[in-house]
Amino acid sequence: MKPDPADLLGLCRRRGYIWPSFEMYGGVAGMFDYGPLGITMRNNIVEAWRLLYRGREGFIEIDSETVTPREVLKASGHVDQFSDYITYCGSCDSPFRADHLVSGYCENPDVLSPAELEESFRANGVKCPECGGELGPVEDFNLMFKTTIGPGSSRPGFLRPETAQGIFVNYPNLYRYGREKMPLGVIQTGRGYRNEIAPRQGMIRMREFNMMEVELFVDPEDKTWPRFHEVADEEITLVPQDGREVTVTVAQAVERGIIINEVLAYFVYATKELLEFVGIDPARIRFRQHLKDEMAHYAMDCWDAEALLSYGWTEVTGVADRGCWDLSRHMEFSGQDLTHFKPFDEPVEMDVEKVRAKHKALGPAFKGGAKAIAEAIEALDPSAAKGGTVRVAVDGEEIELGGEYFEIVRVREKVSGKRVVPHVIEPSYGLDRIFYSVLEHAYDKDPEDGYTVLRLKPSVAPVKVGVFPLMDKDGLGDFATELDEMVREYGVESYYDASGTIGRRYARMDEIGTPWCVTVDYESLEDGTVTVRDRDTKEQKRLAAEDVPEIIDLLVCGELSFADL
Amino acid sequence: MKPDPADLLGLCRRRGYIWPSFEMYGGVAGMFDYGPLGITMRNNIVEAWRLLYRGREGFIEIDSETVTPREVLKASGHVDQFSDYITYCGSCDSPFRADHLVSGYCENPDVLSPAELEESFRANGVKCPECGGELGPVEDFNLMFKTTIGPGSSRPGFLRPETAQGIFVNYPNLYRYGREKMPLGVIQTGRGYRNEIAPRQGMIRMREFNMMEVELFVDPEDKTWPRFHEVADEEITLVPQDGREVTVTVAQAVERGIIINEVLAYFVYATKELLEFVGIDPARIRFRQHLKDEMAHYAMDCWDAEALLSYGWTEVTGVADRGCWDLSRHMEFSGQDLTHFKPFDEPVEMDVEKVRAKHKALGPAFKGGAKAIAEAIEALDPSAAKGGTVRVAVDGEEIELGGEYFEIVRVREKVSGKRVVPHVIEPSYGLDRIFYSVLEHAYDKDPEDGYTVLRLKPSVAPVKVGVFPLMDKDGLGDFATELDEMVREYGVESYYDASGTIGRRYARMDEIGTPWCVTVDYESLEDGTVTVRDRDTKEQKRLAAEDVPEIIDLLVCGELSFADL
Repeated sequence: MKPDPADLLGLCRRRGYIWPSFEMYGGVAGMFDYGPLGITMRNNIVEAWRLLYRGREGFIEIDSETVTPREVLKASGHVDQFSDYITYCGSCDSPFRADHLVSGYCENPDVLSPAELEESFRANGVKCPECGGELGPVEDFNLMFKTTIGPGSSRPGFLRPETAQGIFVNYPNLYRYGREKMPLGVIQTGRGYRNEIAPRQGMIRMREFNMMEVELFVDPEDKTWPRFHEVADEEITLVPQDGREVTVTVAQAVERGIIINEVLAYFVYATKELLEFVGIDPARIRFRQHLKDEMAHYAMDCWDAEALLSYGWTEVTGVADRGCWDLSRHMEFSGQDLTHFKPFDEPVEMDVEKVRAKHKALGPAFKGGAKAIAEAIEALDPSAAKGGTVRVAVDGEEIELGGEYFEIVRVREKVSGKRVVPHVIEPSYGLDRIFYSVLEHAYDKDPEDGYTVLRLKPSVAPVKVGVFPLMDKDGLGDFATELDEMVREYGVESYYDASGTIGRRYARMDEIGTPWCVTVDYESLEDGTVTVRDRDTKEQKRLAAEDVPEIIDLLVCGELSFADL
Repeated sequence: MKPDPADLLGLCRRRGYIWPSFEMYGGVAGMFDYGPLGITMRNNIVEAWRLLYRGREGFIEIDSETVTPREVLKASGHVDQFSDYITYCGSCDSPFRADHLVSGYCENPDVLSPAELEESFRANGVKCPECGGELGPVEDFNLMFKTTIGPGSSRPGFLRPETAQGIFVNYPNLYRYGREKMPLGVIQTGRGYRNEIAPRQGMIRMREFNMMEVELFVDPEDKTWPRFHEVADEEITLVPQDGREVTVTVAQAVERGIIINEVLAYFVYATKELLEFVGIDPARIRFRQHLKDEMAHYAMDCWDAEALLSYGWTEVTGVADRGCWDLSRHMEFSGQDLTHFKPFDEPVEMDVEKVRAKHKALGPAFKGGAKAIAEAIEALDPSAAKGGTVRVAVDGEEIELGGEYFEIVRVREKVSGKRVVPHVIEPSYGLDRIFYSVLEHAYDKDPEDGYTVLRLKPSVAPVKVGVFPLMDKDGLGDFATELDEMVREYGVESYYDASGTIGRRYARMDEIGTPWCVTVDYESLEDGTVTVRDRDTKEQKRLAAEDVPEIIDLLVCGELSFADL
């Protein structure tokens, strides 16, 4: 059922899933803290993601710093392009996101230019929502949090807008770690930051958020995937650029050119499996292809996994083929060689272009320095000489040389391989949005008494078992406390509760999504058995208390079902 | 054995434990990224910490935001006091940490005042180490990274200097979650930031670092601990303020007043156990009490766990009794009530002070408003009236009233309990330093061939098992690949290696600390068995390949030893 987001956020707050940050000091919009239940469930989602990418696919993980020097984000394009349009009220100086102000008048306000936005203000009589004043000009507002590294203002930095850049700038280390082979899959989870102008929609737009990103480096000439056959016949629902929803097999999606290549299709499907595994309702998930004007300039193809929430269809993951954009930019800005050497099966004779120095001209002009200059010229890639002049650095000095000193020649050589810039396939998961979607899709009301029940999957539920003494006397409390400790030390999350009626305690556990509850009663003192109650069927069974930790653990990982007990 | 830190950092870099951040762009001092082995080992340490605090002690965990508005850090004291002394060269403008410049001339340069530091420059002829110029005045440099939340400069913020504040500002939520009972234990792991003037000593002083913090709220009148008896007779080596090292039992440490109370002593000992569990050498660990001039102004007692590293004795954890400092400050600055209501066993008759309104004086002076003012006066705490006047707010207006309008009286009342400000016991773990100490203490050379071996504990080692085909042909490679996947999908970290001699592959695994290696040979193809080799004894045994995942898992958690196989 579809909850009112305010109801769900109320539950999250009351029961310790999510708390607005810094509430004691008036709060900060777009920031949320994870309470005890929240962080536990979030970590369970992260573990599911790790199991897929590290466990099944054998990818490697890294953890890079969040404070990032400006150079890196200049290369990535974020310094110039990671922005929204802002306008300030001319009277009260309140800031607004310009496209939000005209959302009632335009279909796609986020594609409008500043001039179009200003025109729309005029045409529709849009004034300051705070004071009714005239709105000022529409300007770029960079969404990165700015800071300075070290004393003085010499080293400007930003909080990273995505974890991906930490992977790209470690590419030489990663390539070496992976023994210089393609494909090379790398994952990272951690904070991302986006200094929103006016955050809204609860956990959907956070200023400080959590991501799980995957950067898969592949040979640009080989976008197949070894495990593709495992998913080829599985069905998936896609909304391509033409807007017409289709349900096809993964193989058909590639054959018909709906998804650009095999590896991208494989990870679109893997994303579907992961999202369903953590509890997103298969009936409320779809994959929508980015429209041409929505696609980032670097993306060759991009599919958003969208969950149907009370806010409407909401992006929770993007799966993109970023082509060679990232590594090419970092090659250009850092001057490092980030290519992959791709050996041929056997050496091939081919015509290759070379830059050759004209020794007869260099000698008289440069005397004793000619030899070093000639060597520097011949080490150049021919592409560096296409402009008619070349620049070489000799003994720390840079020299520009005209066409009289070199020529481009074609020679026949045995070549053992070639250098290519790897392409990047990027499944990027918005962890907070997935977390929130899981809660919305788990939200239900008990058909009998109308209480809220979160029907969370046992593997992501933060508490696996509630432990209750029937009453807190006659040794029942001690028995239950000991059982609770036993369960916890076994590594299974439990919640001890001794207050209120048993019905009230079941209701409290249902409300936070706990799949099972164990009650210690007078019979327990005699024969050591306890009652286990199942959240969804409300059935109860009796078990030996000493078996509880292991049985709950087996129920959680699905190796046992409640019906088998 | 004691490694040269440069050797160890070289190994960390080459093999994927740790990489200097943003190296491609010249690097940033004091920043390191965790490579694939590093993040895995770091996460293993975090899990050991969780098992202790959440599993054994039943504490709860949260995850709060890193960007923090200024008000919070004003209350915590960081805006005013989280700083080092800086001086800039008058000629080249280079910044220096003032106390570092005189470390060769003074015993404890970090306790000197700015005037004393300047005097020491003069007395010892200290000049700019970069250019020999004159040094400028010594000033405060706040070590927090500054930023701005949202557009404009209206909301200044900082990156949190510690995770602890995120717990304190959530105290009302946590107290409610814990059902308003003491003790209440809360943990958080995540990033902390310290914008060092001149970072040095590798991973010991990082600008962006990882912490595992524990804030245990306790009744200020009850600093006992229910599990204290479990550790009372255990021995611990302490260096109290007088500098004379003693080895005593935990109970003796409290009885003799060496450690201020039971709960602090319990967590000092728990810290020792945790550090040893993850692999810090018991012979290279000590607990040193903070000296009076070293103790933070709020701490009632503080013990540093120090590890003996190649840098000397280095703090890796601080265990402090912070008294009521944190909650008192946040009460004062936020105006919220953060007290704990402590019910008496049964209601007690006692004399209590009350503020009573003088109706006879209020009536004529305030007419119809007198009743509301009288009620407001009588709701005041007597402490608010100690100055001879009181301030009350009535209908939004604040009124100051002199002594003619109220009196403080003592009345006898039945009181059911009282309000106290909880005290905080804080074990604060420097995760990166612990990580680095574990590596240093694991560093060893093979006695026969001189190769490096990291003798990591299996539970923290990032790779549990190396999987090798004897040769990559005749189906040995396929057999080993399949085994490798089986192990990984079982949730056990493995490393597949098919290149070089077996001896070379063992050496590679020894160097990263992998406890076991499995080799697939021609016998494997016949009978399905493989060789398992133990890192420390170099013994080898044959096992059925299908049993490998479970056996490695049991070896890791210590339920099986290699000798039992």
